[in-house]
Amino acid sequence: MPELWHEIELSPAFHDLDPMDIVWHGNYVKYLELARNALLARFNYDYPQMRDSGYAWPIVDMRLKYVDMLPYGRRVIVRAEIVEWENRLKIEYVIRDAETGKSINKAHTIQVALSITTREMQYVCPPVLWQKLGVEPA
Amino acid sequence: MPELWHEIELSPAFHDLDPMDIVWHGNYVKYLELARNALLARFNYDYPQMRDSGYAWPIVDMRLKYVDMLPYGRRVIVRAEIVEWENRLKIEYVIRDAETGKSINKAHTIQVALSITTREMQYVCPPVLWQKLGVEPA
Amino acid sequence: MPELWHEIELSPAFHDLDPMDIVWHGNYVKYLELARNALLARFNYDYPQMRDSGYAWPIVDMRLKYVDMLPYGRRVIVRAEIVEWENRLKIEYVIRDAETGKSINKAHTIQVALSITTREMQYVCPPVLWQKLGVEPA
Amino acid sequence: MPELWHEIELSPAFHDLDPMDIVWHGNYVKYLELARNALLARFNYDYPQMRDSGYAWPIVDMRLKYVDMLPYGRRVIVRAEIVEWENRLKIEYVIRDAETGKSINKAHTIQVALSITTREMQYVCPPVLWQKLGVEPA
Repeated sequence: MPELWHEIELSPAFHDLDPMDIVWHGNYVKYLELARNALLARFNYDYPQMRDSGYAWPIVDMRLKYVDMLPYGRRVIVRAEIVEWENRLKIEYVIRDAETGKSINKAHTIQVALSITTREMQYVCPPVLWQKLGVEPA
Repeated sequence: MPELWHEIELSPAFHDLDPMDIVWHGNYVKYLELARNALLARFNYDYPQMRDSGYAWPIVDMRLKYVDMLPYGRRVIVRAEIVEWENRLKIEYVIRDAETGKSINKAHTIQVALSITTREMQYVCPPVLWQKLGVEPA
Repeated sequence: MPELWHEIELSPAFHDLDPMDIVWHGNYVKYLELARNALLARFNYDYPQMRDSGYAWPIVDMRLKYVDMLPYGRRVIVRAEIVEWENRLKIEYVIRDAETGKSINKAHTIQVALSITTREMQYVCPPVLWQKLGVEPA
Repeated sequence: MPELWHEIELSPAFHDLDPMDIVWHGNYVKYLELARNALLARFNYDYPQMRDSGYAWPIVDMRLKYVDMLPYGRRVIVRAEIVEWENRLKIEYVIRDAETGKSINKAHTIQVALSITTREMQYVCPPVLWQKLGVEPA
């Protein structure tokens, strides 16, 4: 079974900061997406391939727990790992200080497949996901 | 006891849309903030008053459940209600279609007080919150 | 000839602020868009009608001059006026303090029509624009 | 005299896209800032050092000319070059397709120094800028 995780490294942009001189909480959602898309790109199932497969994968549930604050100049590792793929695509995230390893944020997202043509939600993930990831449904 | 909720009405901006022609999931976080700040402004405890009271109120936990999609031109009501204020400020949100009342998103945020001078988290909400809201801690 | 301008009133969101406690310069682009779309909606040629008419109208030139800073809580009027419509759609903007009338920003955008099917730029604006605006090309 | 330019490479994020499946025009402002800050960081005068030197450097003029569209997956080079530093800091930008070299956007920004303590605009750039850049005013 393949390793279903990926890590990216990034540093906050100035335009991600708020008046407290730290990253505005809503901007973490962008960091999660960057890690998620890099992970899915490894399996050749990033946004363009999703679209070409006939499915959109809207987020239906998202939770973020903020453990520490993130100032400008701090380098972080964003780790994304696929933990469910049968009926929905669940990804867990940890954002850590790249130097100290200290945890800054823990999050998850849940996506479901939506047929682009029928606009219907799929209650089982379409087989294209399993083929791309190289996994078997239970 | 005062009513601890508030509603705002808004319609998505074009720049909030993604390639699916619906609001990008991360932009809902902005809508929650608009409703939260309008609610707190009613109690004269919006961002400038928070800052002047010596406290920042960072989000430490945020969860959004996406029930439906939100296209351009759809008017929505964002309702925010304070449901905890003793040790942390917990606010629950519902985003509904302004016309049909159909639910589009349900969310919550949890904030804690952080002393701006000491940078220390407060494990009990500072009394200024209760005075502003007109509530008593349990 | 119709009046080709419109004004909206808005107040910066907290998430529009930067560490200087003023609106980050890039966020003014969103305010221009809100005024532009409200103006075009008056003529029934906002984004959905543009798309349905077979044309996208990408921005090809944009300039902003920042005259003053914009803090949280300040209400502003954003005025958008169409000043060219023959070969390209040029709109001029002024952002003013709603109370004092003091100018905060002056800007313009230039858009050209792009056929959605052929992806080709139009060197003359398509007649649908003139019909919607109720104007005549020179 | 030092080389006063720098290049970064980047690829659009999914959350930078609009319903036309290309980067929303306002998001280019973020790409300019990333290149500008990387350039200034080379001279040890990025945002934290600016702040510590007692000056903010607000953008007072910004122009972008959009030559081509930018889809997801396209890698681009953003080049930023300082072309004025005596009375104001003017930076010119070119965004090019990393593979073909084709131009996608040309832009400039103009910043002036603002004393953080007095909130007064400086009509001549403060000497700290020249020292950091290793240049002489004319």
